[in-house]
Amino acid sequence: MAKLLRVNMSRLEARFEDVPDKYRLLGGRALTSRIVADEVPPTCHPLGPRNKVVFAPGLLTGTTAPSSGRLSVGGKSPLTGTIKETNAGGITPQQLANLGVKAIIVEGDRPDKNWYTLVVDEAGARLEATPEYAGLGCYELNRRLWERYGEGAGIICIGPAGEMKMAIAGVSTNDSENDPGRYAGRGGMGAVMGAKGLKAIVVKSSKIFDVPVANKEAFKDAQQRLAKALHEHPVSGQTLPSLGTAALVNVINEAGALPTRNFSSGRFEHAARTGGEAMAEAVKQRGGKGKMGHACHPGCVIRCSNIIPDEKGEVLCAPVEYESTWALGANCGIGNLDHIAMLNRLCNDVGLDTIETGVTLGVLMEAGVLAFGDGPRAIDLLDRDVRQGTPLGRILGAGSAVAGKVYGVRRVPAVKGQGMPAYDPRAIKGIGVTYATSSMGADHTAGYAVAANVLKVGGFVDPLKPEGQAELSRNLQIATAYVDSTGLCLFTAFALLDIPDALQATVDMINAMYGTTWTVDDAVAYGKEVLRTEVAFNRAAGFTAAHDRLPEFMYEEKLAPHNEVFDVPDEDLDKVTVF
Amino acid sequence: MAKLLRVNMSRLEARFEDVPDKYRLLGGRALTSRIVADEVPPTCHPLGPRNKVVFAPGLLTGTTAPSSGRLSVGGKSPLTGTIKETNAGGITPQQLANLGVKAIIVEGDRPDKNWYTLVVDEAGARLEATPEYAGLGCYELNRRLWERYGEGAGIICIGPAGEMKMAIAGVSTNDSENDPGRYAGRGGMGAVMGAKGLKAIVVKSSKIFDVPVANKEAFKDAQQRLAKALHEHPVSGQTLPSLGTAALVNVINEAGALPTRNFSSGRFEHAARTGGEAMAEAVKQRGGKGKMGHACHPGCVIRCSNIIPDEKGEVLCAPVEYESTWALGANCGIGNLDHIAMLNRLCNDVGLDTIETGVTLGVLMEAGVLAFGDGPRAIDLLDRDVRQGTPLGRILGAGSAVAGKVYGVRRVPAVKGQGMPAYDPRAIKGIGVTYATSSMGADHTAGYAVAANVLKVGGFVDPLKPEGQAELSRNLQIATAYVDSTGLCLFTAFALLDIPDALQATVDMINAMYGTTWTVDDAVAYGKEVLRTEVAFNRAAGFTAAHDRLPEFMYEEKLAPHNEVFDVPDEDLDKVTVF
Repeated sequence: MAKLLRVNMSRLEARFEDVPDKYRLLGGRALTSRIVADEVPPTCHPLGPRNKVVFAPGLLTGTTAPSSGRLSVGGKSPLTGTIKETNAGGITPQQLANLGVKAIIVEGDRPDKNWYTLVVDEAGARLEATPEYAGLGCYELNRRLWERYGEGAGIICIGPAGEMKMAIAGVSTNDSENDPGRYAGRGGMGAVMGAKGLKAIVVKSSKIFDVPVANKEAFKDAQQRLAKALHEHPVSGQTLPSLGTAALVNVINEAGALPTRNFSSGRFEHAARTGGEAMAEAVKQRGGKGKMGHACHPGCVIRCSNIIPDEKGEVLCAPVEYESTWALGANCGIGNLDHIAMLNRLCNDVGLDTIETGVTLGVLMEAGVLAFGDGPRAIDLLDRDVRQGTPLGRILGAGSAVAGKVYGVRRVPAVKGQGMPAYDPRAIKGIGVTYATSSMGADHTAGYAVAANVLKVGGFVDPLKPEGQAELSRNLQIATAYVDSTGLCLFTAFALLDIPDALQATVDMINAMYGTTWTVDDAVAYGKEVLRTEVAFNRAAGFTAAHDRLPEFMYEEKLAPHNEVFDVPDEDLDKVTVF
Repeated sequence: MAKLLRVNMSRLEARFEDVPDKYRLLGGRALTSRIVADEVPPTCHPLGPRNKVVFAPGLLTGTTAPSSGRLSVGGKSPLTGTIKETNAGGITPQQLANLGVKAIIVEGDRPDKNWYTLVVDEAGARLEATPEYAGLGCYELNRRLWERYGEGAGIICIGPAGEMKMAIAGVSTNDSENDPGRYAGRGGMGAVMGAKGLKAIVVKSSKIFDVPVANKEAFKDAQQRLAKALHEHPVSGQTLPSLGTAALVNVINEAGALPTRNFSSGRFEHAARTGGEAMAEAVKQRGGKGKMGHACHPGCVIRCSNIIPDEKGEVLCAPVEYESTWALGANCGIGNLDHIAMLNRLCNDVGLDTIETGVTLGVLMEAGVLAFGDGPRAIDLLDRDVRQGTPLGRILGAGSAVAGKVYGVRRVPAVKGQGMPAYDPRAIKGIGVTYATSSMGADHTAGYAVAANVLKVGGFVDPLKPEGQAELSRNLQIATAYVDSTGLCLFTAFALLDIPDALQATVDMINAMYGTTWTVDDAVAYGKEVLRTEVAFNRAAGFTAAHDRLPEFMYEEKLAPHNEVFDVPDEDLDKVTVF
């Protein structure tokens, strides 16, 4: 029987609890959001003892379901003040599920100034005082943790940024090479770990695919149907495996929606140097440890990830994803892939969300603190200022909205305090609706309207017209809330949107595993319930429709080359969040 | 006939307009809040062209009414995001009223990077490009402005902090010695001036008491009754003239409510060195230009202000008020009056709100950026970091809530982003209700419950009990909204609360001046209408009951010496803002 693992940092106690019946069919985001709503006062201070950080593998995680190894991390965000769910892959989630841990709930606050490591293995769970890890970057920390706890251990950890409670500190998870580059990056959940004194979680299971399934036959059938769909769909079957997520750089640049130099243009003149094709070329030219088609967790059939090599063929950064190459590239006017990869590596090491780091750098560049395009200065800022916690490093670590406030910058591309990802909402209006209305703040994964606006997946809605965007975003937000709860990678969604049997297959797997009799309609209802929970939390925390808006400048300042402003009416936006 | 002066910075145009009938009986805060509600979109960016900054003398300003020379400054606050009214004395308001200017509305944004000065005199109004004033501190700026526009001119200006759009930048007005130490400090209205490129407003009128009054006889009678009441009341007649506002230091310290070292105790061991008695002693010992009983504007009968001399008898700072000596003193653990006065002078020069500066320094001290009690380092921070706009100076200039976010500090004594003034709400619970519920963020002047909680003015409500505090605060907020609209100094309120004829006299003056037939009930209704306007603006800007709360730590952490937490129930707080 799966258990909840409750870790009380005030008492330095880790205890297993039975899973309440109401949580039995919740997983991933549905579970983290429900636990946060049940246990965290919406108006509490995100860095105080009343906030909690919850880790939950998805409903299907730890089975042989393809690409199902995601881990949701939830709590109240120090960045946005909203409820937050951010998820990542890596080798930890499957091990956690196979140890029978349905969720880890970390609460309270350490009684001293020590840094602690939580170890979860077949013998149980225990907190260990590990003051020797204080200040370590994630690369060195991961190395030492494998040395101490054995190779193959799943690691969830924070870097110095999380220790310093920086609001954009992410939560790292490792891949099979023990690279810390898998990040539940958004919303500062690393700062919540830091505030509680939890430096790392080590998870060690000998099994990774053996979570009990009620009807193995039916499960296998559905699993194969999903795998087939993922293979057949051109995005998950071809584009992502060969060029990775960064294949989008040229596509979105072509669409005139690649935010450039702090969202002042939709085209970046050096885009091609920073995209998936350029990465594939670098891997080919430099060889060594470089790799395209890298899997972030065992059993992934998409394998969209990569290892970017340096000139000697050593690992420079693994991976460099679309969002990161954009945030640290086009958005900062940086067109040098090696600089971008180094910035990405530094984010992974000090423990920062790459998206928010790039957006904040863009705001600092707008303020004149450093010049657009100055890669070496940006590298120094991360490696020295953030690591040492200088005032400027702290400002960067506090995110784009705070940096804008500190420097009096009005052009801050953020919603609810969270910086926007790699799609300008004036040129892809559906994603603008998602940015505005998501409970998470500006988030692309919450309702990836780029699919229908640009990629023509799940239909087509003209990206430049306001009509139809609210409905598109709303439907995607519902579907996503379901997918984020299954443990399936969001990149399965391309197939789910276009191939009816694929969505059915996910429901069939859940039925086979849990003995339920869900239909696709139940999956939709499930997604809506997750969203209702999140919206209710935010309302109680003080968020209103006034916060479901894009920044003022995007309603006024036309974006080249389409010369569009964001013009989805407020009334449309207000309809999105009624689930 | 009085006019509105509309200054459009985008067109660099200053034009007089007729006063709409609906504004005829509005003045001071009632007028700034009404204009802001009518003309500023509640969700606009405070530093963008849609925000406005409005300057309005009170209904009685420019007459012979005693202590009636206040100027309200209103707009949307860059610090809080709420509507904001902050007021100051000095020699400008009476001149403005006598020039027939009912309000100055500054809107838009400069078309270039120039700094502008608005000149208002008997010849009209004009904008002058004055790039030579860029970067000047207020002392030197004021000196140059008198040199250029003549001695005796009223000056409203900003220092470098306002130019840099720091969210805690205040608006300076000068006294009769051209000292810039009169501040409409709170809420960053100096940053709004800075965002618009308006460095200064120069006001020159040959008359200061000649605003037309319909019934001079009746006016004179009422004016004399008010003057008598102010003279008779022990606070306005004795304490304030002799010891100034800083007489409160020992009183509030004795009450165990003087926030010390970032609100970690209610008693400061060096309080006596920093209070009114110590100031009077310094004035006596050092002589020279030092003075107690200084009037901030002509016709003030209270004269609560002071000029603190340095060891040579030269002006060190004029004035050092209670709030400033607390913020820069006890709250920072600084017990050296000369350090405090120097910090105050630097705030006046670079253009910062002293309260928010002290509260932010307290948060930075809590974070370990500098040590509690380190006056010289704090002086350096203001004189070098803020003036030069270093990253640390910028953090300080962004206020306590942002500094707390940047440094991951949970103990931030702020509401709606504005730092708390000099009364710990755990030991004076009525003022806690005002902090929590005022539309302005944590503000003591909005409903000065200290009067009944500690000073036994306007009755007595036990400061340590939660009962009765909400009603007390609500009634005071209503009365204050009326007083802030008349142009009368809030220090008239002690007499207004205790001497029934004093409040009647203010109504009689308005009737005599405007030909109205108001009763005291009308004054109450007037105050309520101001508050309704402000609450409605905030609601539309996204504020809810969740924002009408004190910081979490004040509900949990007991304050010495009374060992009390803040325990006024949320339900009580929620009743306050229904007007």
